[in-house]
Amino acid sequence: MSYRPQLSSASAVLTREVEVLDERGRASVIAIPAERPLTVYVDKRELVTLMTLGGAPEALTLGYLRNQRLVTALEDIVSVQVDWEVDAVAVTTRNGIAGLAERTSKQVVTTGCGQGSVFGGLMDDVDRIVLPTAARLPQSTLYRIIDAVRNHQSIYKQAGSVHGCALFSAAGEMLSFVEDVGRHNAVDAIAGQMWLEGIAGADKVFYTTGRLTSEMVIKGAQMGIPFLLSRSGTTQMGHMVAERIGMTLLSRCTGKHFLLLTGQERLVYEPGTADVVRYA
Amino acid sequence: MSYRPQLSSASAVLTREVEVLDERGRASVIAIPAERPLTVYVDKRELVTLMTLGGAPEALTLGYLRNQRLVTALEDIVSVQVDWEVDAVAVTTRNGIAGLAERTSKQVVTTGCGQGSVFGGLMDDVDRIVLPTAARLPQSTLYRIIDAVRNHQSIYKQAGSVHGCALFSAAGEMLSFVEDVGRHNAVDAIAGQMWLEGIAGADKVFYTTGRLTSEMVIKGAQMGIPFLLSRSGTTQMGHMVAERIGMTLLSRCTGKHFLLLTGQERLVYEPGTADVVRYA
Repeated sequence: MSYRPQLSSASAVLTREVEVLDERGRASVIAIPAERPLTVYVDKRELVTLMTLGGAPEALTLGYLRNQRLVTALEDIVSVQVDWEVDAVAVTTRNGIAGLAERTSKQVVTTGCGQGSVFGGLMDDVDRIVLPTAARLPQSTLYRIIDAVRNHQSIYKQAGSVHGCALFSAAGEMLSFVEDVGRHNAVDAIAGQMWLEGIAGADKVFYTTGRLTSEMVIKGAQMGIPFLLSRSGTTQMGHMVAERIGMTLLSRCTGKHFLLLTGQERLVYEPGTADVVRYA
Repeated sequence: MSYRPQLSSASAVLTREVEVLDERGRASVIAIPAERPLTVYVDKRELVTLMTLGGAPEALTLGYLRNQRLVTALEDIVSVQVDWEVDAVAVTTRNGIAGLAERTSKQVVTTGCGQGSVFGGLMDDVDRIVLPTAARLPQSTLYRIIDAVRNHQSIYKQAGSVHGCALFSAAGEMLSFVEDVGRHNAVDAIAGQMWLEGIAGADKVFYTTGRLTSEMVIKGAQMGIPFLLSRSGTTQMGHMVAERIGMTLLSRCTGKHFLLLTGQERLVYEPGTADVVRYA
């Protein structure tokens, strides 16, 4: 990886403790995830306010700009400076973003959690996406991935109410794990990290705790990742888009169980693997 | 209820069957929820595209316009005509919407599922909302509501991957139940129904399967409903906003369990109720 914009590394407290009463009136203190606005300014122009957990705001901002196709080359970005004092991130570009106003005027409100808005025309690009046909995922590697997510320390385990996304190598090593109150923020943050580090998607596997809706599938495809897994389910458009672009979609991934929805040729079944008891 | 706009009653197929392979390579057919775009045109001007299950498109459109505060009086709406042939809904207003372009130019992308976008300024109104302080919810009524949702026939039971919202009377009768791929669509559809039928929120209870994020709390408050329940959790801003406007927030409502987060004075504990075994 060569070029790197100037990035702040603004950290924020990710959980908060609140007092609650249970069904018997017993008081206790529980942790809940943070949710804070992050207003994105591009060259001093207000673009959007993202509601986020706040764990990876610089990567989220980069991934958002990229997944919205507002910036195509990392070199165009001079700096990304997050300031939680004002809940804002200032993005400075080298030459500005041509026609930003027009390009952000049309909106699609999607089923996405956390980042429901995809600017117009995104669907038009779907058919241009080509995912590697030769990529393969052995069943044992799939199980390794499912276990890795299950065993990972997370805000979800502490506080619930967040979505997690993870990027895995073809061998099933976890390369990145991001949680957010909205699953689309988590996806975008990982996309931002991949962009920053120059990580290609073609030999990767993407995992999300959220539902496989059309927007999730499109974002996975934008990252060039052929495998998209979820412990949750899918929707008609998520399934349709995955079929159209030839993505391998797996839902209901828990323990040894999964449902292989599309791109079935990429999964390598290993007879007996589903029966082996694993302790992780 | 007096005035009623002209409404289509466009129905759509809510589930689709797809073939899947499980962990042993066994083929089966499962149902998945529909997800389709619905582009909202107001007086022939394109406003937004909502990704929706499609179960209550007219109510969704009305509730969306109202919750985005784009239309304040039902009388201003002449007709709402949904046409699934073109995945569009045509809204005709009596006098147009003043400054529609400006009012829809600023966006907040929230943690909402399904309807992630709230046009700017919404938070500014929060403090003006006054919820009835005298309203009370007996613990036994809360349990009646939780049971009613559990026993309700739903797309979720058939196909998963949808969020459900329900409106209940103070006595715990289910008045409305709407599901959507995005929980904010489900909320807006119920808001649209309430608007259409002239139903007040002050003596109602709102239930959602989704997380209690800031936007959910704000939308509940916009409907004037003092009680918001979820079987899921909450976020810091959801909790903070509920506290600020004095809404009674209950999370993790399953079986006999719940967590009372805010507005605690409105819940009437009934000693022993949590111990009674109920068959519903």
